[in-house]
Amino acid sequence: MEKLYEGKAKVLFPAGPDTLRVYFKDEATAFNAQKRGLIPGKGVVNNKVSATLFRYLEAHGVKTHFLEEVSDREMRVWRVEILPLEVILRFRAAGSFAKRYGVKEGTPLKTPLVEFSLKSDPLGDPLICPEAILALGLATEEELSQVKATTLKVGELLRDFFAQRGLDLVDFKLEFGKRNREILLADEISPDTMRLWDQKTGEPMDKDRFRKDLGGVEEAYQEVLRRVLRG
Amino acid sequence: MEKLYEGKAKVLFPAGPDTLRVYFKDEATAFNAQKRGLIPGKGVVNNKVSATLFRYLEAHGVKTHFLEEVSDREMRVWRVEILPLEVILRFRAAGSFAKRYGVKEGTPLKTPLVEFSLKSDPLGDPLICPEAILALGLATEEELSQVKATTLKVGELLRDFFAQRGLDLVDFKLEFGKRNREILLADEISPDTMRLWDQKTGEPMDKDRFRKDLGGVEEAYQEVLRRVLRG
Ligand SMILES: Nc1ncnc2c1ncn2[C@@H]1O[C@H](COP(=O)(O)OP(=O)(O)O)[C@@H](O)[C@H]1O
Ligand SMILES: Nc1ncnc2c1ncn2[C@@H]1O[C@H](COP(=O)(O)OP(=O)(O)O)[C@@H](O)[C@H]1O
Ligand SMILES: [Mg+2]
Ligand SMILES: [Mg+2]
Repeated sequence: MEKLYEGKAKVLFPAGPDTLRVYFKDEATAFNAQKRGLIPGKGVVNNKVSATLFRYLEAHGVKTHFLEEVSDREMRVWRVEILPLEVILRFRAAGSFAKRYGVKEGTPLKTPLVEFSLKSDPLGDPLICPEAILALGLATEEELSQVKATTLKVGELLRDFFAQRGLDLVDFKLEFGKRNREILLADEISPDTMRLWDQKTGEPMDKDRFRKDLGGVEEAYQEVLRRVLRG
Repeated sequence: MEKLYEGKAKVLFPAGPDTLRVYFKDEATAFNAQKRGLIPGKGVVNNKVSATLFRYLEAHGVKTHFLEEVSDREMRVWRVEILPLEVILRFRAAGSFAKRYGVKEGTPLKTPLVEFSLKSDPLGDPLICPEAILALGLATEEELSQVKATTLKVGELLRDFFAQRGLDLVDFKLEFGKRNREILLADEISPDTMRLWDQKTGEPMDKDRFRKDLGGVEEAYQEVLRRVLRG
């Protein structure tokens, strides 16, 4: 079937009249696609981890785009109109945040921090504050407060989920979309879009192994999948 | 007398036990001091414009560090502990904001927008959202809401002031400091720290003439001073 969109990590195919099939690739990119590579098996891991987390979140009252797994690398989802925002929740300073403000990686934040960036590859996904989102008319006040509240709830749920599996959830990125006026959690939740540190060793178990050339990338993805499926 | 601090545009000298003498230089810098130059007479203009605006704001209930003009290039101010934040108020998209979000210069914003950046030359004064200021403990919630409210009030007052003088206030930067637990508006308010467009011609009458090599820099500063003093 003809593809609708091919992104950096996934391919979207039309499925039903208002559903999509999402195919998860092994291709990996970092630093706004300046760095490119392959992580064999990543697509399978990200599909299964995302599916498991979407089901877990739905069971706890979070509305998501997820419908069903259709193969090892594919899930079916509601087609939504994606808000042009990446929503980041941070428990500790890491990555771009740590660098931007000169804070040591791993510094705990006084309170979980919701950050937004404008989803725009040409502009490099710039940080954008809630006030600017409103001033530019990128979302309404109601949409914004709903997105923020859902993100904080997802943060609590995921932090618990991973803590029970020996993983420290440092931060993660979400995307939301609209379907019939309702806002659904969309895209993926996977080691590509989270920072997970092993509670015992402190080792990153996520895409930072690829970004920072730490080695053992495939193994880390497989280990996260194993712990996620352990139930 | 020995100087306490020499910055990019001003020099601070100790005056009384808890006051400072601020000397305004003609040196100009832009783009985090990558561009340097001289604008003859700028120090006089910025001192007089700042003094006039501080008096005007005080008359309307805004607490500032300003005490008195002591010479053409010098004012006496309360010594404060500067908050490590630059506070920007935007009425229209311009400068770094327009570039960051790919918006045309001059686009009116739906509502006046308060933005913060972390005052740090080595980090390049990065944008910082209110939530991050709190999460990093750079200010308390009370300080932040006071700073925000004062900035919005200053914005209304200055916009009126300049509109009556044929100038469109596009945006400006403020700094605040603490003295005995009280938050005072500090630093300067001048064509170095504002964007002012002539209402008739649309021409910038501020430091953008220097940043963008538009010529007529000295003349624009003198013209702003003339209109400000017109009363
Ligand atoms: N339910 C959905 N409906 C429509 N678009 C979606 C949905 N879920 C995710 N998307 C979008 O599909 C794309 C997923 O592919 P990805 O490889 O992540 O792309 P990108 O390179 O843009 O990040 C993203 O642009 C994402 O916003
Ligand atoms: N009332 C005050 N008390 C103490 N410091 C002040 C006061 N007003 C302004 N400052 C600080 O003095 C310096 C003014 O010099 P400037 O040339 O603008 O410096 P910079 O290059 O750091 O911007 C700034 O760092 C500013 O924060
Ligand atoms: Mg993506
Ligand atoms: Mg300064």
